[in-house]
Amino acid sequence: MPNNVSPLAVSLPALAPLAGVRLAAGAAGIRYKGRDDVLLMELAPGSTVAGVFTRNKCPGAPVDWCRAALAGGRARAVVVNAGNANVFTGKAGATVARTTAEAAAKLAGCKPREVFVASTGVIGEQLPVERLTAALPRLSKALAADAWGAAARAIMTTDTFPKAATRTARIGDATVTINGIAKGSGMIAPDMATMLCFIATDAKIPSAALQSVLSRGVRSTFNATTVDSDTSTSDTVLLFATGQVKHPRVPAEGGPMLRDFARALAEVLHDLALAVVRDGEGAQKLIRIDVAGAVSANSAKRVAMAIANSPLVKTAIAGEDANWGRIVMAVGKAGEPADRDRLSVAIGGVWMAKDGGVVAGYDETPVVAHMKGREIDIAVDLGLGRGRARVWTCDLTHGYIDINGSYRS
Amino acid sequence: MPNNVSPLAVSLPALAPLAGVRLAAGAAGIRYKGRDDVLLMELAPGSTVAGVFTRNKCPGAPVDWCRAALAGGRARAVVVNAGNANVFTGKAGATVARTTAEAAAKLAGCKPREVFVASTGVIGEQLPVERLTAALPRLSKALAADAWGAAARAIMTTDTFPKAATRTARIGDATVTINGIAKGSGMIAPDMATMLCFIATDAKIPSAALQSVLSRGVRSTFNATTVDSDTSTSDTVLLFATGQVKHPRVPAEGGPMLRDFARALAEVLHDLALAVVRDGEGAQKLIRIDVAGAVSANSAKRVAMAIANSPLVKTAIAGEDANWGRIVMAVGKAGEPADRDRLSVAIGGVWMAKDGGVVAGYDETPVVAHMKGREIDIAVDLGLGRGRARVWTCDLTHGYIDINGSYRS
Repeated sequence: MPNNVSPLAVSLPALAPLAGVRLAAGAAGIRYKGRDDVLLMELAPGSTVAGVFTRNKCPGAPVDWCRAALAGGRARAVVVNAGNANVFTGKAGATVARTTAEAAAKLAGCKPREVFVASTGVIGEQLPVERLTAALPRLSKALAADAWGAAARAIMTTDTFPKAATRTARIGDATVTINGIAKGSGMIAPDMATMLCFIATDAKIPSAALQSVLSRGVRSTFNATTVDSDTSTSDTVLLFATGQVKHPRVPAEGGPMLRDFARALAEVLHDLALAVVRDGEGAQKLIRIDVAGAVSANSAKRVAMAIANSPLVKTAIAGEDANWGRIVMAVGKAGEPADRDRLSVAIGGVWMAKDGGVVAGYDETPVVAHMKGREIDIAVDLGLGRGRARVWTCDLTHGYIDINGSYRS
Repeated sequence: MPNNVSPLAVSLPALAPLAGVRLAAGAAGIRYKGRDDVLLMELAPGSTVAGVFTRNKCPGAPVDWCRAALAGGRARAVVVNAGNANVFTGKAGATVARTTAEAAAKLAGCKPREVFVASTGVIGEQLPVERLTAALPRLSKALAADAWGAAARAIMTTDTFPKAATRTARIGDATVTINGIAKGSGMIAPDMATMLCFIATDAKIPSAALQSVLSRGVRSTFNATTVDSDTSTSDTVLLFATGQVKHPRVPAEGGPMLRDFARALAEVLHDLALAVVRDGEGAQKLIRIDVAGAVSANSAKRVAMAIANSPLVKTAIAGEDANWGRIVMAVGKAGEPADRDRLSVAIGGVWMAKDGGVVAGYDETPVVAHMKGREIDIAVDLGLGRGRARVWTCDLTHGYIDINGSYRS
């Protein structure tokens, strides 16, 4: 990883041990040399699980495995490797996923279907599974409750900084903790989740309720981000609940008792999703896009994503040009209901275009200053209805071309 | 225009005079200095017209004007300027379009609604219409039948080479000619047409028949190309028929008599559309993508466009990496019916991936050589049905970032 750390990087928060979770990272030499590339995560007996995965029609073998395993609703172990995505690897790839799960199940004393696997890296090459399984016994002996930081580092590929987030929440009178780690930098346009993200809580939550809060939380966080419009074949978010904290029983349907938990989970998802955008390949600026006045929330989201994915908008921002004309173009190309003559655009809080034309004599000074900053705010009002959406992206720079014109992912 | 000429440039063909069309190019100093930036085109009385325009929901005032004028089916003059797109300019922008048409109508001795206007360049700035109208009398006096090359040059913006095409066709026993010019380099993802394109024929064709052959021709040419996925607010293709050649009467519905004309027109549209992609901002390679085996032709086109618009596919090709894994990703993200395990991918005619996995021991040597060339062929077979589509794009390079991080369009 010769890449310089993203100028938008946030420092790794200290993740306290979480009852029921032990982790170990190690080097299996699958593709990278001289760094950890495998993570083993062990979960206490009785842990429940929820997951969301890529909607890419060509998912990797690990995604197939996890989808099937999720039906059981129980999890005892997770194996993640970086450097090889085990995607488009045919029947052999499916065997790699199963072999990995079987090896980890033996060490954890559980069924293979209680083991979740995830892989990230190059597509279309066979994963040397023997290197992975050879590393597992060693990792199993090294499992520790305080290895969250090492875990976040072991799953990186083109990432320039490790990504983690933590929150606490109240369930009844009890305090539960949520810890999460993620990786991702390019091929980021999550349609269900993004690249790889693993979250655990010590709360005791039935898998149906867990799935419900996770799916809702992902919608406005991971699924509201894009780096390059390219939806990965490996997107995976898994949430585990170890049930180690005593609190009132959470019903299968979740409900009001999970209100504070859902809030805390959404914050963890938000932190991790934004960390991925902050580490967008070549990113120099973090861009927040708010669309209001759309005919519906879905329509607002599609308009916001059209802006977020426009190469011309992203290169203008890289060039620190408050080019609202390109924003107008992107609104118009989205194909959603829009009326040029009701459209307004603001950058950095300054409305530059209103009702179909430029705002005569608007003050350009604060806009110019805003464009020089690291965090850019764009607001669009379509003036049609009450639908709104917020999404995040990064700018498009020479760094993106450097990374992707050479790195084989 | 400090840009170097695209390495994919094709030389300007010699366009012979076309009966019923005279042209003049000149410098109005609207934005550029020291170059022509206005084109006046005069059409013989009785000329018919057909047009297709952007589907962007925020079209420019000239597009609004042309859409309304097209209802009359007749054309006597065209005014085109480069440097200012007259887009998102409110009521003042509409007045600019009308004032331009009125000035040209006076010179041509026709109704304003028989004048077509087009503008290309920066969005959101008022066009100094007085500079445009001041230039028109001079241009009107300079009208000449042999100015097609100067016309192609006058409408350029970030284009690095002028674009023109010519063909002849048979209608009955008569030979008719089709001449066309176009401009376009960035903000190219035509959804109905692309940037600016003006075509004329000396045939006598009713406007309904003319519209029908034009709409069909655009579908597999301009609308099958993309540079950067950003659909312009100004896309305009206009086709004029001056009726100066004597041939059997063409009925309003066109029909078999226009078969050879439609063939020749499609070839002109193909040449011009590909010239735009060859001049894609920063382009170093022309990429042709063939998708077969889709459930329908529309589905094939959407899959082909997902590949053509993928930044990861385009940067890989810029890096001369035959990264078929990214093609698999792009197929999967298109959201169209696809089955990973039936999918095949070829680059330069060599099938590298088949039936869900890499082709063991395929010969990489010809693929590596193909990737070093200027023209890259990608073929995808989805293995599901009989739908096929062909689209064209270019690679994504540092040049695109250079141009769009600084040029305000």
